[in-house]
Amino acid sequence: MREEFQAELQEISDLLVSMAEAARIALRRATGALLKADREAGELVLVSDAEIDALYRTVEEKVSDLLARQAPVASDLRMAITALHVASGLERMGDLADHVAKTALRRHPSPAAPAELRDVFDEMAQVADRMIAKVIEVLRTPNAETAAELDGDDDAMDDLHSKLFRILLGKDWPYGAETAIDGALLGRFYERYADHAVNAGRRVVYHVTGVNPAG
Amino acid sequence: MREEFQAELQEISDLLVSMAEAARIALRRATGALLKADREAGELVLVSDAEIDALYRTVEEKVSDLLARQAPVASDLRMAITALHVASGLERMGDLADHVAKTALRRHPSPAAPAELRDVFDEMAQVADRMIAKVIEVLRTPNAETAAELDGDDDAMDDLHSKLFRILLGKDWPYGAETAIDGALLGRFYERYADHAVNAGRRVVYHVTGVNPAG
Repeated sequence: MREEFQAELQEISDLLVSMAEAARIALRRATGALLKADREAGELVLVSDAEIDALYRTVEEKVSDLLARQAPVASDLRMAITALHVASGLERMGDLADHVAKTALRRHPSPAAPAELRDVFDEMAQVADRMIAKVIEVLRTPNAETAAELDGDDDAMDDLHSKLFRILLGKDWPYGAETAIDGALLGRFYERYADHAVNAGRRVVYHVTGVNPAG
Repeated sequence: MREEFQAELQEISDLLVSMAEAARIALRRATGALLKADREAGELVLVSDAEIDALYRTVEEKVSDLLARQAPVASDLRMAITALHVASGLERMGDLADHVAKTALRRHPSPAAPAELRDVFDEMAQVADRMIAKVIEVLRTPNAETAAELDGDDDAMDDLHSKLFRILLGKDWPYGAETAIDGALLGRFYERYADHAVNAGRRVVYHVTGVNPAG
């Protein structure tokens, strides 16, 4: 029974890693669509979003099934609840990558991000990629320290978000409202992606320490 | 045991209703801050967001505790998992009301929404209010039909969101990038609030029917 339970938890954990890897590749591709007007990459994001959604449903079913059959307690129960929350966040990260890709595709073949914004989006994408890499690491080997590092990364993301707004709201912004709106929404998508990575990290801290970090 | 379990589920359900009522009042106040430059209303939203976060932590603790002690199965287990998801969505709705309020307060005493956008935000707020009212109703008495109505309301919200963008992107938009960005982000906050209401409704359908609507 115990062995079977551990095997099932491992299977759920592997699914979360698959979701996180897919969410990582999705944002990389979406950024490619945004910064390199790579249409094919953008279209692949839309496909992988559906795959991430399907993985999410599988995780939910497996966790419900596990709770119903095995009635875990203590750290096993925390692990199961953590899995539900993390899966929900990863599903949203897939959605956010999808929003970035759709914004890029809507403007294709024109670039959705004008020259003035490319560096800041490139940096935001790099920070986001570093963060999801840490989420994957933590999912493979729960580690409160790596999870806690995500807060520092999120500060870097917030700084970039502020920088983006300084450019958008600068007196010398040469584009119209539409490009400013796209820029602001794209910034929000990257920033929310990072927030979900932080939350996933916090959930792992909860799993390791039992202290509920919600809110 | 069974009676105790039902009493605890009822207590969790009551907490969800409290969260939903707080999220409803929060968005009403935030809209007041936005459309009537009501500073006091806006500041109250910031306070209630902290209260909603505290309620969320309480729900999570109670559900974990319930799962650990009672090991529910079947519809009882579904109810507990539903509660976790719904609480997470309601917490986000509180955050989104908070974002609306902060956007309004940042511009105070100037109105954050120019005359051209007031009607559409007023309508978005009304649709959102109708939706959270249905979520409260469904939390009190789970009802798949009322929950399903939320999809129609969400279509109305999407139409308003499109209308907002037509105004923002119209050739005769008389304001600069900053007001356009605020308008677009505010629109997104209302629209996401509505999405979370739909998800809460779907979760209740899941609870009633056992069919997982995730994704």
